[in-house]
Amino acid sequence: MSIEMNRPKEIVADILAKGVKIENIVFVGCGASMAESYPGRYFLESCAKKLRIFHYTASEFNWNTPAWLGDTSVVISVSMGGNTPETVQANSVAKAAGATVISVTHVAGSPLTKEADYCVIHDFETNYAAKLERMGYTMALALELLQQTEGYEHYDKMLDGFAKIFDLAESSAQASRRVAREFAKEYQNAPVIYVMSSGASTEVAYSTSVCMLMEMQWIHSGNCHSGEFFHGPFEIVEKDVPFLLLMNDGRTRAVDSRALTFLHRFQAKTTVIDAKDYGLSSVIDGSVATFFNPLLHTAVYRVFEEELANVREHPLTKRRYMWKLEY
Amino acid sequence: MSIEMNRPKEIVADILAKGVKIENIVFVGCGASMAESYPGRYFLESCAKKLRIFHYTASEFNWNTPAWLGDTSVVISVSMGGNTPETVQANSVAKAAGATVISVTHVAGSPLTKEADYCVIHDFETNYAAKLERMGYTMALALELLQQTEGYEHYDKMLDGFAKIFDLAESSAQASRRVAREFAKEYQNAPVIYVMSSGASTEVAYSTSVCMLMEMQWIHSGNCHSGEFFHGPFEIVEKDVPFLLLMNDGRTRAVDSRALTFLHRFQAKTTVIDAKDYGLSSVIDGSVATFFNPLLHTAVYRVFEEELANVREHPLTKRRYMWKLEY
Repeated sequence: MSIEMNRPKEIVADILAKGVKIENIVFVGCGASMAESYPGRYFLESCAKKLRIFHYTASEFNWNTPAWLGDTSVVISVSMGGNTPETVQANSVAKAAGATVISVTHVAGSPLTKEADYCVIHDFETNYAAKLERMGYTMALALELLQQTEGYEHYDKMLDGFAKIFDLAESSAQASRRVAREFAKEYQNAPVIYVMSSGASTEVAYSTSVCMLMEMQWIHSGNCHSGEFFHGPFEIVEKDVPFLLLMNDGRTRAVDSRALTFLHRFQAKTTVIDAKDYGLSSVIDGSVATFFNPLLHTAVYRVFEEELANVREHPLTKRRYMWKLEY
Repeated sequence: MSIEMNRPKEIVADILAKGVKIENIVFVGCGASMAESYPGRYFLESCAKKLRIFHYTASEFNWNTPAWLGDTSVVISVSMGGNTPETVQANSVAKAAGATVISVTHVAGSPLTKEADYCVIHDFETNYAAKLERMGYTMALALELLQQTEGYEHYDKMLDGFAKIFDLAESSAQASRRVAREFAKEYQNAPVIYVMSSGASTEVAYSTSVCMLMEMQWIHSGNCHSGEFFHGPFEIVEKDVPFLLLMNDGRTRAVDSRALTFLHRFQAKTTVIDAKDYGLSSVIDGSVATFFNPLLHTAVYRVFEEELANVREHPLTKRRYMWKLEY
């Protein structure tokens, strides 16, 4: 299992072959599709020495369109169904300004593909690994944009990581059913669940909170960076307040670890999905392992979510408003 | 009332006079001090055509220190008391990499000032306007960094805005006592309060949620961008679920407005702090008014918070953990 690494490579090569001088990389989406661009943004913010990197929820981009948007900008727009109105509009905003648009979507021929210069169509249903393709392709585009402009010293290690992460994520998800059932049983009646992470997984905590818990389970939720925990949120902690910590096997592990120690000390109800338990840094080279945490966390939490939906008899597709009315 | 605009101007001029080639602007802080840098970041992300802009919670910056950090970087570190360990450490990380450090703090001589190349000492206690100085100085530094490198077409309008916003914020806060009391009465027993905004005020929603509600009142809370509301969080809405909307009088007003319509339609318990009610865009030029929303929202919400603390008999300085133990 993997994504088609040649596709991002060819797209970036083609943009450069047209003479585009790439200076600004813009990730645009809404909800989970915005959050799933975060690992690509995070990689570039960490490693790019010249490129400028931006990341917007589409409405923000559309209403406060940045002054610099133009022909040196590559906009990567992401929408699962390819029909999110704000993201489709973002493509128009980007094209009107002269930017190059790459759209990542599950649905070929969807509205998002109409104005895009390039499209990447991803799988979703096949298995847990397939559910990571959207995130994987935005990361792979980020990697190629860096490699083909400035170059990146650990490019080969990243390719090696991409070759391994999907199998690891799939097997990790498959292996987590038992602990997922325990989580579901423990958290099914939680009045609120807080989600935390750090590093490249910061917005996995966000999408787990706002999409998986609030949207799909109607459970109250908040989220924050594990390092921010000690600067506000931790005052809410007392015995049995529910937390979910997506622990990184990478550079910010100490930040997550400090939050975990505090949660245990004050007996918060705590569940940890620790990428180290699934062997992330044993499988992927230490120079780049930190960037692959979000793929592992997303795959494993999906199983937790399925079990939560089962025990609560609240299907993942159940909605009050979405798909049901105009708003 | 205003901040001392000459100070940011002189600091940036001095950095340039030393021959520093400014390419990367980095805002670093924790909790509210991180969030209060967001308006400066937002201004630069909107208007800067060449500068690269970054914004970190300090632990993230310290543990995953970016590859590009060096002598073309200006790090603006913010800590109210000047003794936040992660932010003090960020100064060391920045200096070790050869960056220029400007520290914004309330406490002269505090640990944060030790390694900083430049310090800006701000007021806090005097009145509501004084509580905005931390945010105001980071914005003013952002403005000068842009003006003195690339230039900014609305520079004079921004200066005019700074000359007016502190008086407007103070009078707005003073005028909001009655509605603040109503808010406090209505929300005092809320099991959870969600906070939303957009544009330059996006992280005022964040700090209101994690610092004002979770930290200072021990009330469960979540927050999101008003545009993200429709991509997850809105499924939590039903009658009487408590929301606070910081409505912008600026470019993203339509985004906030759409969320408000939905909240009303489904009878969520909704309180709005609308910058337009306080005349923001009548006082400040339309070319730049959007950037001043966070100062107004912060000042007015402070009064709401005071009233909430009063009615709940939970002083703003009451803590379970902070100031009380090592963690």
